[in-house]
Amino acid sequence: MIAETIALNEKGDVTLTAYIQPVEGEFRGIFERPAVLVLPGGGYMFCSDREADPVAFPYLKAGYDVFILRYSVGPDHAWPQPLEDYEKAMELIENRAEEWHVCKEKIAVIGFSAGGHLAGVAATMAQRRPAAAILGYAVLNDQAKELGEDLPNISGHVDEHTCPCFVFATRTDGVVKIQNSLDFLNALNRYSISFETHIYSYGGHGFSTGDHCVQSKSSLITERAYNWVEDSIGWLHEIFGEFGDQGMLPPVVKGHVNDDGEAWLSLDCTIGRVYGNPEARRVLADLFEEMEEKIPPFNPGMTFDDMMHTLSAYKLRELLCERNIGTDRFNEYDQRLQKIPNI
Amino acid sequence: MIAETIALNEKGDVTLTAYIQPVEGEFRGIFERPAVLVLPGGGYMFCSDREADPVAFPYLKAGYDVFILRYSVGPDHAWPQPLEDYEKAMELIENRAEEWHVCKEKIAVIGFSAGGHLAGVAATMAQRRPAAAILGYAVLNDQAKELGEDLPNISGHVDEHTCPCFVFATRTDGVVKIQNSLDFLNALNRYSISFETHIYSYGGHGFSTGDHCVQSKSSLITERAYNWVEDSIGWLHEIFGEFGDQGMLPPVVKGHVNDDGEAWLSLDCTIGRVYGNPEARRVLADLFEEMEEKIPPFNPGMTFDDMMHTLSAYKLRELLCERNIGTDRFNEYDQRLQKIPNI
Amino acid sequence: MIAETIALNEKGDVTLTAYIQPVEGEFRGIFERPAVLVLPGGGYMFCSDREADPVAFPYLKAGYDVFILRYSVGPDHAWPQPLEDYEKAMELIENRAEEWHVCKEKIAVIGFSAGGHLAGVAATMAQRRPAAAILGYAVLNDQAKELGEDLPNISGHVDEHTCPCFVFATRTDGVVKIQNSLDFLNALNRYSISFETHIYSYGGHGFSTGDHCVQSKSSLITERAYNWVEDSIGWLHEIFGEFGDQGMLPPVVKGHVNDDGEAWLSLDCTIGRVYGNPEARRVLADLFEEMEEKIPPFNPGMTFDDMMHTLSAYKLRELLCERNIGTDRFNEYDQRLQKIPNI
Amino acid sequence: MIAETIALNEKGDVTLTAYIQPVEGEFRGIFERPAVLVLPGGGYMFCSDREADPVAFPYLKAGYDVFILRYSVGPDHAWPQPLEDYEKAMELIENRAEEWHVCKEKIAVIGFSAGGHLAGVAATMAQRRPAAAILGYAVLNDQAKELGEDLPNISGHVDEHTCPCFVFATRTDGVVKIQNSLDFLNALNRYSISFETHIYSYGGHGFSTGDHCVQSKSSLITERAYNWVEDSIGWLHEIFGEFGDQGMLPPVVKGHVNDDGEAWLSLDCTIGRVYGNPEARRVLADLFEEMEEKIPPFNPGMTFDDMMHTLSAYKLRELLCERNIGTDRFNEYDQRLQKIPNI
Repeated sequence: MIAETIALNEKGDVTLTAYIQPVEGEFRGIFERPAVLVLPGGGYMFCSDREADPVAFPYLKAGYDVFILRYSVGPDHAWPQPLEDYEKAMELIENRAEEWHVCKEKIAVIGFSAGGHLAGVAATMAQRRPAAAILGYAVLNDQAKELGEDLPNISGHVDEHTCPCFVFATRTDGVVKIQNSLDFLNALNRYSISFETHIYSYGGHGFSTGDHCVQSKSSLITERAYNWVEDSIGWLHEIFGEFGDQGMLPPVVKGHVNDDGEAWLSLDCTIGRVYGNPEARRVLADLFEEMEEKIPPFNPGMTFDDMMHTLSAYKLRELLCERNIGTDRFNEYDQRLQKIPNI
Repeated sequence: MIAETIALNEKGDVTLTAYIQPVEGEFRGIFERPAVLVLPGGGYMFCSDREADPVAFPYLKAGYDVFILRYSVGPDHAWPQPLEDYEKAMELIENRAEEWHVCKEKIAVIGFSAGGHLAGVAATMAQRRPAAAILGYAVLNDQAKELGEDLPNISGHVDEHTCPCFVFATRTDGVVKIQNSLDFLNALNRYSISFETHIYSYGGHGFSTGDHCVQSKSSLITERAYNWVEDSIGWLHEIFGEFGDQGMLPPVVKGHVNDDGEAWLSLDCTIGRVYGNPEARRVLADLFEEMEEKIPPFNPGMTFDDMMHTLSAYKLRELLCERNIGTDRFNEYDQRLQKIPNI
Repeated sequence: MIAETIALNEKGDVTLTAYIQPVEGEFRGIFERPAVLVLPGGGYMFCSDREADPVAFPYLKAGYDVFILRYSVGPDHAWPQPLEDYEKAMELIENRAEEWHVCKEKIAVIGFSAGGHLAGVAATMAQRRPAAAILGYAVLNDQAKELGEDLPNISGHVDEHTCPCFVFATRTDGVVKIQNSLDFLNALNRYSISFETHIYSYGGHGFSTGDHCVQSKSSLITERAYNWVEDSIGWLHEIFGEFGDQGMLPPVVKGHVNDDGEAWLSLDCTIGRVYGNPEARRVLADLFEEMEEKIPPFNPGMTFDDMMHTLSAYKLRELLCERNIGTDRFNEYDQRLQKIPNI
Repeated sequence: MIAETIALNEKGDVTLTAYIQPVEGEFRGIFERPAVLVLPGGGYMFCSDREADPVAFPYLKAGYDVFILRYSVGPDHAWPQPLEDYEKAMELIENRAEEWHVCKEKIAVIGFSAGGHLAGVAATMAQRRPAAAILGYAVLNDQAKELGEDLPNISGHVDEHTCPCFVFATRTDGVVKIQNSLDFLNALNRYSISFETHIYSYGGHGFSTGDHCVQSKSSLITERAYNWVEDSIGWLHEIFGEFGDQGMLPPVVKGHVNDDGEAWLSLDCTIGRVYGNPEARRVLADLFEEMEEKIPPFNPGMTFDDMMHTLSAYKLRELLCERNIGTDRFNEYDQRLQKIPNI
């Protein structure tokens, strides 16, 4: 592993640390790696060491390259300086992506508390957007004002271009109120953005990975709170795809809950959307025939049309999988659909 | 184990199944058991067997008694019949609690989908309220209207008497929209009710425990979705207390996030609340002295008063635990505080 | 679920409790269920309730039917009475298998301590053998003598017909010495029997599932010891096959480590065995050609023959999977091989 | 984190890589760190990268410093060169322990396959012994001869000074036969050495951490095999003690199963040993009185002496914990006992 720390400003107090793992050779099928950019917390007053290296290790184990940004804090942090540090860091990573074998399209940010605020800004407002964001006990609504007058309320900036998010916190956090996470999740839902969330029953603020080397054993916190680490890795694999024998496998979770908002139809649109489109119905006639045959009506008087109406909010792919219908021809169906404008 | 099914109506299609475990003897320290009442889903059209027994088993393993209510469904389910079935079931359990060694004060409900709606009604509107509620991909907002015109929007009925809730669902549920869970969590937060929530990245509706005996292997669903079972058990132990050698241990999670809304002060009030009360400050003078000594000011010019202000949203107990201050005299402090009206 | 307790002797103190789950209907693809027969411990002096129902629940959750045998104990237990009770119980289960929809070929025993001794006897000496055995802190060597003069030393009775075993215990057990498990594992290995084992760092005897309702919180025992429950379920699914959409899927673990001891060749023989058989080499010529092409020699001077020699202890199926060679024609290869006598 | 690679020979192909984490400051209560020395496998022909860094990360996350030794391999590896490399590495670590804040007394080795052989040699024959050893699919019996004529059979070198060991492997390993692990465990048991072991149902050789970045998804291996990583960390915390608020907490597992082999008595001796010693009985008279009072005889005619005899293989501490007897005076009892020669 290469470990390198690069100063991002003259004073040298803004730095990017890079942990870069090798590719190919014994790492068969790995030609480039996805990456995680860590944004430690510290109330924009400092960058916590407890939320830096200890957070990097599990993602390194999972096969990711990891970067840690120590951004502008304290008297120097006049907004938007931290955001500019982030942009500079992402630019640097993109510039050296080929050298480092980092997959530019698969860089996630992970931020905690104030670092979670910065990660949220990255996900919603930055020029160089991450492909996924993990937000831990993060400042995500107008509580941001307590950290600095100019800090944006991130929940107000979510839109349909926001990346998938993994949001975790403890219910009883006495520092960053749980309403932050709830407001943000509501905003994500408004724009059909993919997300996962875990709000654990009790625990204080700033527990990092929860290992006893970073978190006092005497803290009042539920042990479940530490599951976010493994859960967030499982989630990243879903968003970015798993490591396969010949490069990375395709993602199993897309950026939006379904493709109803996309320009072209696909298997990931809802049944309502596909079945309601005459052209799609023509093009998938064989599939719908098979469905009619294999999905029995829910009650005697029901027609197939009625049933498709009842199931209209299902993703087409989901229903087919569950019923084992045409799964061997998914690619073909998808290609047929992707030629039909979604209108 | 005693297994008994009791008809709750004449027709015999509303039934309560009881799985009752022995106490004492080899079960040293167990004099009565907490219980879970299972409310299967099925759109108020049927009661799903996949959400009945299979759900009972893990709670039985954890030491709980389990009841399963098959409530009024189909043409007969004119609201509020299912709620009345619930009331009757709870009444019956309470009446036989002594015989069965069930702890009346520790009965949780768990409901799925439409059964989750009924569980939510129980938690917010019933005469006989459960002490905790587990709500799985549940109908919790005005989507209830789709199930029946008269069905209440539960999120609108949450108030400060609502029990602690554990809410889980999948992000992509195409049947019960995730907004149901989000609306309900917002309502719980508005009244400072304790909760835990897990919304998993993807998966269809109705996955029950996720074991392959109840859920097709070919379904598109994240494996993490099955963690709700163990997590809900851990959570119940926090709400009800763990089994101890001489009866149940005290709960570690109370019904509200803190005691700021209670009639008397306690260690579970926030620092702001306690430190802001002159009488409490007098009564805990020794403790505050110790705190002053042991918690260094965050920066040079800071007074102890400033620090208490900064920490005002922390629960007093939480801060003391984390800093190992006075933990051996917690009971005593709590008793002193509980004599002071919270005004 | 049907719960039924059947007396197996006149006195009524030997009983079989049956917990039978429904099939078909909502349990799509389940036509019959595998089963587990629980043999509680108690030093042949009593049958522990802590190792009866609490053990049944997790297997019920996993989709199994569960039986609990309360066998002859105390002054009445003159060997081989408990074994005869076991035989009677198995006979009864087999006789009612059709009625109960129990899969006769997939009945596992699970026994603890002295019950583990009985389970071990069942696995090695009974007329009606189980298809798998789970042995918890079990008496498996000549320590059996301490329980009764006539009790057999099970490790001495293992042979090539012994079923796959899952063996767990704690290193520091002060009652049943860990040498019991070690002797048994050695015997299993001698006959190439499939097994899995977990010996946990520390913990006393008789911890059952480890839930606090059956095991005092103040006991000195590692938390990992409780993993045996979930691990044994995962293992059973491997031995018996998982629940599939049209009946149970094929097992992924066979009774022996490889098929080198079987009468006919198969993909589960070692490379040495298959490649060393001229007939097999002729019949799989196309496969070996593909292997030669796709597996590069480990060093320059190496021939393909050398390589096959180096890899001779590998199971053929395993190597092919790992290298993604011919996996789509596995069934066909297997059929070709199964016509060749293994000599 | 400091990452540094140090050449241990002139040619530079034997190296020690050090990953050193900071102490104190935000890492409250950490003054020095325990460490893990990784010995990758590769048949003494190479040092596998898949068993180097990827193995380091989880221990780093758990708070340990990690070293990776790339020892002499290939034509140069004439035994005992790899052992000498190990000694040199340990010497270097000890020399720089103060600078690096490494706790010299708490260095574990972890080795895989041939590296597991080297780790086993370290644990049984080296001058500088590790305090714990984790041995993964390791060569531990006379199969070592296949790797090199002079390689020692480690199972034959276990004695009472061998450190606690964590041994894992898969049942079906076609390269290093499972008998290696079984022979070694038998030897450990012969000398009462503490251990934990996990032998998983099926899987090939060399699976490392099992993450898909190091192990092909298409390999035939049980998912449980990957639990060794977290389990070995839990085990190390037991052997070395957890991180506490003022330095490391005491270990919960000692090097031997009980203290019966030690020079002085202690609470960790068996009841047989303590109760059988007249001086110990005098010194603990108050404790035995309390036991007599609190532990009811197992049957009517039984005397307290009989009961102590029945329980003679129990560790005294274990029984007291389980029954909640005198736990608040454990330190005192231990001190009283440690003045009595164990004869």
